[in-house]
Formats: sequence, structure tokens, C-alpha cells
Amino acid sequence: MTSAVQSAYTTPAYVVKSHDAKFENWACPRRAPTADDVRIQIEYCGICHSDLHQVRDEWKGSTYPMVPGHEIVGKVIQVGEQARKQGKFKEGDVVGVGCFVDSCRQCEDCKNGLAVQFCPRVVFTYNGRDKAGEPTYGGYAREIVVDYRYVLRIPEKLATPDMLPRAAPLLCAGITTYSPLRYAGAKKGMRVGINGLGGLGHIAVRLAKAMGCTVVVLSRSEKKRQDALELLKADQYLLTSDPEAMKREAGTFDLIVDAVAARHDLTALTALLRRDGKLCLLGIPPEPYEIPAQALVFGRRSIFGSLVGGIQETQEMLDFCAKHSIVCEIEMIPPTAIDEAYERMARSDVRYRFVIDNKQLEAV
Amino acid sequence: MTSAVQSAYTTPAYVVKSHDAKFENWACPRRAPTADDVRIQIEYCGICHSDLHQVRDEWKGSTYPMVPGHEIVGKVIQVGEQARKQGKFKEGDVVGVGCFVDSCRQCEDCKNGLAVQFCPRVVFTYNGRDKAGEPTYGGYAREIVVDYRYVLRIPEKLATPDMLPRAAPLLCAGITTYSPLRYAGAKKGMRVGINGLGGLGHIAVRLAKAMGCTVVVLSRSEKKRQDALELLKADQYLLTSDPEAMKREAGTFDLIVDAVAARHDLTALTALLRRDGKLCLLGIPPEPYEIPAQALVFGRRSIFGSLVGGIQETQEMLDFCAKHSIVCEIEMIPPTAIDEAYERMARSDVRYRFVIDNKQLEAV
Repeated sequence: MTSAVQSAYTTPAYVVKSHDAKFENWACPRRAPTADDVRIQIEYCGICHSDLHQVRDEWKGSTYPMVPGHEIVGKVIQVGEQARKQGKFKEGDVVGVGCFVDSCRQCEDCKNGLAVQFCPRVVFTYNGRDKAGEPTYGGYAREIVVDYRYVLRIPEKLATPDMLPRAAPLLCAGITTYSPLRYAGAKKGMRVGINGLGGLGHIAVRLAKAMGCTVVVLSRSEKKRQDALELLKADQYLLTSDPEAMKREAGTFDLIVDAVAARHDLTALTALLRRDGKLCLLGIPPEPYEIPAQALVFGRRSIFGSLVGGIQETQEMLDFCAKHSIVCEIEMIPPTAIDEAYERMARSDVRYRFVIDNKQLEAV
Repeated sequence: MTSAVQSAYTTPAYVVKSHDAKFENWACPRRAPTADDVRIQIEYCGICHSDLHQVRDEWKGSTYPMVPGHEIVGKVIQVGEQARKQGKFKEGDVVGVGCFVDSCRQCEDCKNGLAVQFCPRVVFTYNGRDKAGEPTYGGYAREIVVDYRYVLRIPEKLATPDMLPRAAPLLCAGITTYSPLRYAGAKKGMRVGINGLGGLGHIAVRLAKAMGCTVVVLSRSEKKRQDALELLKADQYLLTSDPEAMKREAGTFDLIVDAVAARHDLTALTALLRRDGKLCLLGIPPEPYEIPAQALVFGRRSIFGSLVGGIQETQEMLDFCAKHSIVCEIEMIPPTAIDEAYERMARSDVRYRFVIDNKQLEAV
């Protein structure tokens, strides 16, 4: 058993020190665990596409040194007094941390199941500032210290050595697709399209299938047809680059979850929607979308956006995934291969999520 | 009492014979009333902004000669046998006709309260083709013959000489704003913005107030402040051209009904929405809108479109308006003044709807 730490300390991590730097080994500062904190030894951390955006400062507002990572799973190695009293966590528990590590806990959204993605004072797991004003560092590290309220319980079924690394991306990719599916009322009998079969899309297919929907993967090329139908068990594959197929399927979808990050043609997607159908945007391209009013006015169609999900909802999603044995398709890499993984991810060359084996992190 | 007609006949009307012609007097053909038909003597007809679009072929697909008009109120002067058996109408009843005069009556939407705005075989009141393939002619005429299923009952309270002309625009402007307010669940406690105080906007204010909402009129200029607050009893007036005011009101609206027909800045409007807030587009500018994904992703905001409403919903709206004594602000004109009214309407110079006094129509 690891011994308890009482003061601020450092933990081995991988860091970038500027927007065009490579990753390097670093002694990452962690705060002295408070009575509310859980100290976690990180076993695996997924690499989210937004890590790349932020490392390269593509969304502006990046601060360095930056330790990315918000798809964290690991073991509890220390529990603060208050956190212990809640009875939620004890040493040895398998837990997860997602995109957020704190929030105001007073606003309407925080009170509503810690729907912290809407809290104006939310603290991001990395590239944020905690309540003391200190920078936050994420999951490309050996340890992390997090307020127990923002720590998720990994259900037993997902905590096995085989499942755990594949569960890591659920903490962002999983909740980011689960939340809008629930918000849009995804259920049996609904025809749901998933546009873009990447880290988000592939897990969205499994979630929507488990919710009972008829699931159609939308893709520009034939490359992912076999994975969609055989590996992920989608019901249908629709080539968005085929005008005939798009015409044939017009007006047949209740919901399309659009996980494509680059700017693309939304009008063609809305044409696939039925009356009252909804298109959910998850990606944030730097350029605005173009959309003609008639694409929405005829058929009373909607476009909405969705950003991750709340803490309570994330726990619900993990329990749902355990019940339905849903995990991600991953490529496991050592921390030394992060730069290479970023390059491959930038050209969409990953099936379907890179996950870092944090156990290989060594002290500087 | 007018005597029953048995064969096709003509009725005095005002017509345009090409996209750049003036209105002229015309003998408008009407079909021989069938057993399902109600023959109506039109007393008043509102002038909708879409009449102008179609007369000038701005949406393409206009056919001539064209008799516009789909905000029709009048008296029943003949009832077919089947229509009579339904017991809904008898000679002397005050009735209305809106945007549609027929539909397939077999599709899911038709079966659902004649939500004919979604029926692929809907027949428009004018510039359409009826099931026999004949062109339809609208309400700038002395009489019209319509299947009883598409005829609305004007409640007694709205059928008085004073109220009736002011009720005419409810048949399009009323239902076009009532339907999305209901669809978005407008109710007490909701803060609703109405963007654009014209024919649609001014009635939307009254409807949303009657539904119990806090209503804010959004406008680019100060011109309509007094009307908004005093005449229409809006709770607040917000200048969209004032960046400080827009910033102050950011994130405070549950719903914005956007009745502006010309292309404008949707990003500024979405910034006014709360979490889960909705922006409803009613206008169809020829150019597409621009919208950045982040305007929707943060706060899970939606944009949806809405087009008129169904027959059952139109009756519900008329009954709601009667209950709450809601009618439109109008400027009554003789048929000879239609061209001038169009010119004024094109420069938004109307308070707030022109209504034609069809009783002044004379035979050619």
C-alpha cells in the first residue's frame, strides 16, 4: 500500500511546454490532498482528439506546461476524511476521472446532478485553474488528486485487467455521446444515424444499439463499412458521398449524432431527418456552419449541440456500459509513443482510441 | 340567401397575371361544389408577407394568373351533403380558411389532427394544384369553395363585425406563431423573446403573453418600443443593436421566436439563450444562415424551424384566441389598394397587417 502524502508533491507525467513542443517526461505538481480529496494512481488514460487541439493551442487559451488527459482510470490510494465519511470510496477502489474536477456546487446546474458542463465556474481536468488559482494537470501522469464529488466509480465488470483500459475512453467519448442520446430520448424504434466513425462515433454506435435504436453509420468512404457492420454491429452503413443513397434515405432518421470534427455539409444531413428529427453537433470546427432556414422550417427539424455530460450522468453511463458490456476499441501505447499517436490521430489513423499505459511512466 | 350553385362558376377576384404585373379585377373560376365542400362568401382576407414573395416569384415556382390570400374569413353560403352530415357547418356560419385546402388524409401526419403542413401531398390555398390538377386560387376573391375538413370555425367572440376583420390574419400569422410556441412548451415562468415586430411578431407577443410567458420584444431600432410595451403589453423591449444590452441579457431566454424574414445574425440571438434554450426560425431568407457550432454546443442550445401548423391546431388556436380576446392590429383596405399595400409592406410600413375588405369586390 502506498503511504499517505500530507503535502504538495510531484508525480511522473508527460508534458508539453509550448504549442509546438514534443512531449517530455516531467515531475508534475499535485496539491496536498484535502479532507475532500481522493488520491488516485492512474493506470490508463485515453487520448481524446481535444487533447491535440489544446496541446497545439488550436482553440486558443492554452497554457503551458500542459499535461493533457481526461479519460482517466486508476486505483484509489488515499481517501480524505470527509471523502471517507461519505462512504463512497476506499483505498483499492477502481475509479475514473473525466473532463471536470470541480465546479461551484451552488448553481442550478451543479445542484442538478452536478451537470457541471453548464456551470460557469467549472474546473477542467487540465488546462484549467482550480479554486486556489493553481493550474490543473491531467491524466498523462502517474497520480492525480481530485475532490471525491468528481470521482466516478468504475463498475466491477469494467474493472477487470482486460476491460479497464478499454473503459478509460468512456470518461469523455462515452459520456459525450451518451448524454445527447439520452437528451434526444433515444429508444427502441428510433432510427439513429452516427456520422463519423472515430473515437466518439464508434462508442455512440454501441450505446445507441444498447438503447434499442436502429443504428446507421454515416461515412464519406467505404473504409469503415466492415468495422461498422461486423465489429460494432450497426444495422446499416450509409455513404454520405453517394447522392443516390442520400436521396433514398431522405426523411428517415429521428436523430443524427454528428461526431465529425471538421466543417462539413449540414444541409445534406438535415435532409435525412424525419419530421421533428434532430441533428446533434458534437464537433467544434473553427469556421461557422452554413445552414439554410428551409432545411429546418420544412419538417420542423432541429439542430442542437452537446458538450460532454454531468457527473451523475457519467456514473449512469458507466453503469449502463457495465450492464451492456460496452467498452471501446483501443490501441494501447507506452507514454513514449504519445507524439506518434498524435500524428496518427491527426490523420484519423486510429482504431478507435489510443490509451496510454500509465504504469510505464517513470520518475524523471 | 344566396342560391346554391351546381356547376363550376366564377367569382369576382383580384389577380396578378405575371410576376411584375399590377393587380386587376378578374372573374376567378371556382369548382362546382362537391358533397364534401363548403362554399364561402369571403368577407375579409389578410395580406401575408408570403403573398408578396409568391406574387413576385421570389421563391420560384409561381404560376399565373395568381389570386393570393390565405387569411380568409367569411360566411357559409352552401354546404354539401356529406359536409352537412358531419354537422360541423350550416349556412350562415362564420368560418375561416388558412394556408391549406386539401391533403392526402392517409399519411401519419394527416391522421394526426390534419397536421397537413407535413403532408407531402398538401394542397396550398393558392398557387397550388388541387387533386383534379386544377390551379388553386386564394382569398382575394368574393367566394371560395373548400372541402369541409379544411374549414375552420370562427368562435362567436371573434365573429362580431368589429373583431372579424382583425381575426382574419390569425389563419396564417396566428397559427404560424402559435404552433412553435406550443411545440416549445411555452408556459408561465418562461422568458420568451419575439424577434421582429411585424405581422407575425405582434401576434406572437399576444399569444405568448396569454400563455403566461414573460415576453421580451427584440428589435434593431427604437421605433416599435411604445407599440411593444403599451399596445401589445410586452414585458420588456430589448435593442439587438445595443451590444451592452445584449451582453446584459445573455443566457436569460428559454425561447426566441424569430419572425425576421431577412437574413440576420443568429449567433447573437443564440447567445441570449439559457441552457437548453431554443431559437425558432419562421422566416426563409434566400441565403443560408451562418452559425458556429460552439453557439449550440455550449449550453446545449437548439435551433429549430416551424411552418404554419395543422388544421386541428389552427382550430385550437382560434378557440384560444377567443378565450383570451386576441386579435390582430390591422389596416383595412379596399381591393383597389392592394398594389399600394404591397409597396408599403415591402418597406415594413404596416401596423401590423393589411386586411382586404372583400365586400367591396365587384364583378368584372
